[in-house]
Amino acid sequence: MLEDKNPQLTPISAYGEFGLIKHLTENFSFENPSTKISIGDDAAVIDPNGQQVVLTTDVLAEGVHFNLGYVPLKHLGYKAVVVNLSDIAAMDAIPTQILVSLAISNRFPVEALEEIYAGIALACKHYKVDLVGGDTTSSTSGLVMSITAVGLENAENIVKRSGAKANDLLVVTGDLGGAYMGLQILEREHSVFLADPNMQPEMEGYDYILERQLKPEARTDIKKTLKELDIKPTSMIDVSDGLSSEILHLSDQSKVGFHLYEEKIPMDSLTISTAEELNLNPVMCALSGGEDYELLFTIAPEDFDKIKNHPDFTIVGHAVDLEQGNFLVARGSNELIPLNAQGWDAFLNK
Amino acid sequence: MLEDKNPQLTPISAYGEFGLIKHLTENFSFENPSTKISIGDDAAVIDPNGQQVVLTTDVLAEGVHFNLGYVPLKHLGYKAVVVNLSDIAAMDAIPTQILVSLAISNRFPVEALEEIYAGIALACKHYKVDLVGGDTTSSTSGLVMSITAVGLENAENIVKRSGAKANDLLVVTGDLGGAYMGLQILEREHSVFLADPNMQPEMEGYDYILERQLKPEARTDIKKTLKELDIKPTSMIDVSDGLSSEILHLSDQSKVGFHLYEEKIPMDSLTISTAEELNLNPVMCALSGGEDYELLFTIAPEDFDKIKNHPDFTIVGHAVDLEQGNFLVARGSNELIPLNAQGWDAFLNK
Repeated sequence: MLEDKNPQLTPISAYGEFGLIKHLTENFSFENPSTKISIGDDAAVIDPNGQQVVLTTDVLAEGVHFNLGYVPLKHLGYKAVVVNLSDIAAMDAIPTQILVSLAISNRFPVEALEEIYAGIALACKHYKVDLVGGDTTSSTSGLVMSITAVGLENAENIVKRSGAKANDLLVVTGDLGGAYMGLQILEREHSVFLADPNMQPEMEGYDYILERQLKPEARTDIKKTLKELDIKPTSMIDVSDGLSSEILHLSDQSKVGFHLYEEKIPMDSLTISTAEELNLNPVMCALSGGEDYELLFTIAPEDFDKIKNHPDFTIVGHAVDLEQGNFLVARGSNELIPLNAQGWDAFLNK
Repeated sequence: MLEDKNPQLTPISAYGEFGLIKHLTENFSFENPSTKISIGDDAAVIDPNGQQVVLTTDVLAEGVHFNLGYVPLKHLGYKAVVVNLSDIAAMDAIPTQILVSLAISNRFPVEALEEIYAGIALACKHYKVDLVGGDTTSSTSGLVMSITAVGLENAENIVKRSGAKANDLLVVTGDLGGAYMGLQILEREHSVFLADPNMQPEMEGYDYILERQLKPEARTDIKKTLKELDIKPTSMIDVSDGLSSEILHLSDQSKVGFHLYEEKIPMDSLTISTAEELNLNPVMCALSGGEDYELLFTIAPEDFDKIKNHPDFTIVGHAVDLEQGNFLVARGSNELIPLNAQGWDAFLNK
């Protein structure tokens, strides 16, 4: 311990594998009656009680999905849960449990893991999901988090990507492009910091877009809203890679095309002003930025009246026959611009 | 592409994230009627049809759990599935689906991922499980695989770690220590190779222990055998970290102690002879070696006659009151040696 430069920090090896998981998870409580066996056995057991089980997994890698130079570990833990719950919400199911796998370099002390788990705990509490399993190991370098989320729903209520029909309306929740603009600000200030560590970062006034990037929320609330409006989407997906990419996924699975109206794309005024400040096209940020974790879905045309004035939703386009293709309808000119999958790509952005 | 030293290999970026998953998984078929929605939507959906859902996740990291210097990628994919199915088997449930997350450096070509998925496909076919989801991303270095396995079983048939009672018999399947000895041979020959790449590795005659290490199997067959014998274990765990560590887990969860008889521990003759060749104590290899993926379980004393002569099982000890503690009963002397959790530890062995 004499060579430890931070003697108040605890090396991971002080706990060992089993002790570490126990230490990190002992304060997690359970809210779902479907959780039957949790951490401490070979596997977790859940009782779906007649419902179907919805399962998704996402992996976040240091240097690819996040930069620990400006992403606090607690936010990282929170966000890692949220991105998975967003996938469950996109099936219109109710998230109930998560399993967390971590591969982490020994350069991280136990206190760093505690921060990550504090974020995971906060997300579990906020979304009422139970942490029921996981695995934690060392890695030769960096931090990789893989989370699996479980959701439950009756078969007839699950919404797939594949049910959109021509003339269905294309609807999106919230606003888009903010998370990407938040990332641009974080990266700008991080570059400034690296060039001169004495410089104070200029984050003031960017609160909304920084929160969109650092602490996104999954739209698990939309399920209830849609039920109250008596709307069942014909198809649904979450906006994790950018609006353009998600529209193409719905197109691919539903065998329809889409016309997306540029002027309808919902954006916060801070997203637009920041994009202009950085000489970026705000619409491109919404189309290709990703990480907004809003829901994109289609509804039957006869549901128009139910949704048209609702503050949570914006009708951004409609489905057409597959042969007509996928197009952005330009503001003013009504020119048709082909939509490309320019969504954020983990492999191309390396 | 001009600077590519292996022009016949395909960079991961040639596919992009979605194209890559599609490419790697398009030839997977489905065998379980419980698989309702698979890869291609936001999440997978399974229909447990009244059964409970058993979930486990394991993460394998390059340089910690495997060394690509001597572990073929196809074997790695196979083993990554097996270690998860072993956890499902340890709950006495039937494995049905898996989700695969990979974080992989861009230094690996697509062909390397194809090899890993070929191993995953082989395991899926052998164990009749369906690949229903996953996520593949780049990492800044190395390879991390995280697999989540799903199993189904009726609530009354699931076996936990916590049901052992004093006087229950302690039973293990197969033989122990072989996977650890196989690892020693692989590491020895890898060191020789690193010192002189022209040296041929001396692997001949070590087939059984090399297979135990490189291509272990999950004992999903034991469920059927136990049913035929009309035995329901009172507690069960799989031997992933060494017999000693697993006994302490059963002790901890069941609130009993165990007496383990050294002379009863089943070991293959090749495991024993290789241990002696390398000046290792064979019993220590079984106690602490790990990765054997056999099942360790307890049965009521009245089930003794049902199991005593069965070739798949060895009775290695019995449960005692918790206050008596956990001991190895030494061969010959009957001396009681305290059992310690010296099982392979991912953090201490770095």
